Amino acid sequence: MQLGAYLSGYADGEGCFCVTFNRSKRHAFGWDIRPSFSVSQNRERAQILELFQQTFGCGWIRPDRSDRTLKYEVRSVPELVKRIVPHFRSHPLLSAKHRDFEIFAEICEMMSRGEHLMREGFERITMLASSMNLTGKKRYPRIEIKV
Amino acid sequence: MQLGAYLSGYADGEGCFCVTFNRSKRHAFGWDIRPSFSVSQNRERAQILELFQQTFGCGWIRPDRSDRTLKYEVRSVPELVKRIVPHFRSHPLLSAKHRDFEIFAEICEMMSRGEHLMREGFERITMLASSMNLTGKKRYPRIEIKV
Repeated sequence: MQLGAYLSGYADGEGCFCVTFNRSKRHAFGWDIRPSFSVSQNRERAQILELFQQTFGCGWIRPDRSDRTLKYEVRSVPELVKRIVPHFRSHPLLSAKHRDFEIFAEICEMMSRGEHLMREGFERITMLASSMNLTGKKRYPRIEIKV
Repeated sequence: MQLGAYLSGYADGEGCFCVTFNRSKRHAFGWDIRPSFSVSQNRERAQILELFQQTFGCGWIRPDRSDRTLKYEVRSVPELVKRIVPHFRSHPLLSAKHRDFEIFAEICEMMSRGEHLMREGFERITMLASSMNLTGKKRYPRIEIKV
């Protein structure tokens, strides 16, 4: 069984590469930027989330907003860069979600180099994030940067 | 890229093994039994449905009820038995959906041998179908067999 390809196939359907922006006085330019990789599933079929956690060796499984669903999530930028991004480069997504992943990977790599702390990098990250997930719901409101 | 495992992973999340029963005077015991394997996806990411169709060499892609979604579906019992069932035996599902697949496979194999045309086989199929998909919505109302 080729587990890596299996998990990529699963994530192609059910996975989410997200970058959220939260207002914060403690962060550069007033925004806390949080990239995350997550996969949700009903409690009765949560075995697959445990497989993700075991295979990637990082991340947490926790109840989602609804009580019936569990979510596997990785939010640590170093772990996203060291474990999640390399996995999806070795076992690439085969749908248009691949494009979102590549943008997500660039944002994570920029953040691991601290580029979000500089104006040019911060602006590029907001521009990249706003171009993600356009095939589904728009998750990223237009952000006005006040520096 | 291990495409077989990838497609099984995708189907573990997004695929459906279903058996529906429709009232019919033309069918044995008054019910038309229809097993189907299907996968749905937004139009913008329909590449993956084409991969299923190419890999399995059968089935159709058509718009779902909502206009934004496409569905890849295999409903022919001979194709289910020759192509779909062997694929998921070679590349097994890793979540509890595997149990539903095994029941589905047994129903397809019974139907390919014509066992649904005999009372004992028909009753076993309704019993098997009623035990499927119990982790999600119950799709199968209790069927009273009037012979």
